[in-house]
Amino acid sequence: MNIIKIILFSLLASATLFAAPSLADRAKSMTLKAIPTDKAELSKLTDPNKTITIEKVELGKTLYFEPRLSKSGLISCNTCHNLGLGGVDGVPAATGHQWTANPHHLNSPTVYNAVFALSQFWDGRSPHLEDQAQGPMQAAPEMAAPKELVVARINSIPAYVEMFKKAYGESVKVDFETITSTIGIFERTLVTPSRFDDFLGGDEKALSNAEKEGLELFLNKGCTACHSGIALGGGKQKFPLISKYTYAEIGDFKGDANGIVKVPTLRNIIETAPYFHNGAIWTLKEAIQEMGRTQLGQDISDEDATKIETFLGSLTGTKPQIVYPQFPASTTETPKPDLK
Amino acid sequence: MNIIKIILFSLLASATLFAAPSLADRAKSMTLKAIPTDKAELSKLTDPNKTITIEKVELGKTLYFEPRLSKSGLISCNTCHNLGLGGVDGVPAATGHQWTANPHHLNSPTVYNAVFALSQFWDGRSPHLEDQAQGPMQAAPEMAAPKELVVARINSIPAYVEMFKKAYGESVKVDFETITSTIGIFERTLVTPSRFDDFLGGDEKALSNAEKEGLELFLNKGCTACHSGIALGGGKQKFPLISKYTYAEIGDFKGDANGIVKVPTLRNIIETAPYFHNGAIWTLKEAIQEMGRTQLGQDISDEDATKIETFLGSLTGTKPQIVYPQFPASTTETPKPDLK
Repeated sequence: MNIIKIILFSLLASATLFAAPSLADRAKSMTLKAIPTDKAELSKLTDPNKTITIEKVELGKTLYFEPRLSKSGLISCNTCHNLGLGGVDGVPAATGHQWTANPHHLNSPTVYNAVFALSQFWDGRSPHLEDQAQGPMQAAPEMAAPKELVVARINSIPAYVEMFKKAYGESVKVDFETITSTIGIFERTLVTPSRFDDFLGGDEKALSNAEKEGLELFLNKGCTACHSGIALGGGKQKFPLISKYTYAEIGDFKGDANGIVKVPTLRNIIETAPYFHNGAIWTLKEAIQEMGRTQLGQDISDEDATKIETFLGSLTGTKPQIVYPQFPASTTETPKPDLK
Repeated sequence: MNIIKIILFSLLASATLFAAPSLADRAKSMTLKAIPTDKAELSKLTDPNKTITIEKVELGKTLYFEPRLSKSGLISCNTCHNLGLGGVDGVPAATGHQWTANPHHLNSPTVYNAVFALSQFWDGRSPHLEDQAQGPMQAAPEMAAPKELVVARINSIPAYVEMFKKAYGESVKVDFETITSTIGIFERTLVTPSRFDDFLGGDEKALSNAEKEGLELFLNKGCTACHSGIALGGGKQKFPLISKYTYAEIGDFKGDANGIVKVPTLRNIIETAPYFHNGAIWTLKEAIQEMGRTQLGQDISDEDATKIETFLGSLTGTKPQIVYPQFPASTTETPKPDLK
């Protein structure tokens, strides 16, 4: 009897010790992480400097949609990073002031979950969202607004100055840095939890069998080498790494000084076509296969690419509800729109 | 004693009979009307054909903000009729596809309270909002989308087709007319009651003394000849009527075949600069004085114009709360954006 017990116990122990880890555990061991459901834990990631307040987020949201931050008065952050379109514009190259396309033919990256990225812009030259927001506003082919114009427009509208006072206190200086960093603070809240997070959190039924199969392939093929962490991306990598990018001739972007390119997040990827830094690829399947060639040196079959695509669908998240802002009216002091 | 009683009674009666009517009554006798507070009464005006349902309004709102209804995929109804900016774009001439200004240098009229207008467009050529919505979507310098493109884009996205089925029933044909008229139905809900409505409704304290003084002048000078009814505008009038419009040389718009021009609403007028059909006048005071000259043949003093402007401030209304829509994702069938 004792011997039988020992044998049974040993079998049980070895089964536990050597059981294949669950798919969720494997995903986590390969760096994938859920968006924390615990607010304090999430806040440690999205708001390490504790700048988020209701007033700043509300003001930042208003500024995010505010077209008068552009020289013409027609273009807002939301024009290229449309919060209803997965945080992008859906066109290959960002197009702004005077209908000018980005001179490097760069595609607008999504603002959703950008807070989880280690840096901003395609070459990762910006350390955080507050800094990033300064770029497009001034860039000639985007919003084309000199700092002084942005500051003058906002300060000419007493209701805006009041909003800044409410958010930062009476002595606030409503300068370019404060205006843009307030937009960055709003962007920190643009986080979209999805079924994949539920799955990583232990809900095995959150993904369908087809999605799990796709995830297996995603892990086995090595995609998490770059598409890692909460964002499934957001780091940097040499691109192309192994073979030539098929659409390399579109635009002249070659990454940073070392040919390193920021890795896009895969969250909401189904909503953010066209793909790649130059927006040259319209279908996710082709994008997956191109990645296989350029970064992993492998041909991913149509069947496998379709399965991976199915998995990526589980990364479509719930967007925060945004009440469209009412902008305070311009005054006679407000610098006029300039479409030239 | 009896005689005294009779005298007192007579005095009282004559005082009642000949008492000056209240300012609100005078305003109403001169055609100004409040936005009904009673829902059924309001609905008779905004929804005479009983087309409004929650599903259609929600779908219409989504389409109103939908940039893929434009050829480029970048311009929505909200670009020129921004619901956060008093329903306008704040630039002199509407500017759309390929950064092209309206060829007649026409200014975008507000969509708020447009439902109360007797016709749409500056020459009043469109009978209602459902019809109006067909114009800018197809116009080359605005959204530049041929009917077929609009229909193909929407029908390529199953989630949109589902929304139409929910709104109109399973057998709905998602054609250009249905798409545009759904936007019109949403626009019927864009009504903005203000303090002036409370005042007309009997709340004497809803206007300040300065605003009441401005209203007196507005009535006495004859402004209600054109700025009448609920919209304080929305009808048609010859323009210019008495003397030449100072900025007549900007653009070539001369009204309809008889030189008749649609009268803009004065609701939310403080938010909708620049003024006049060609957006040539930036301050409300100058606009009031120009109107005095062209339409009434009188010079309105700086002081009086300022008082009228103060009254017009009471027409700034409460905007309906709009939750920014989430647009369903494009599919591989969706016709690509075309920025050319």
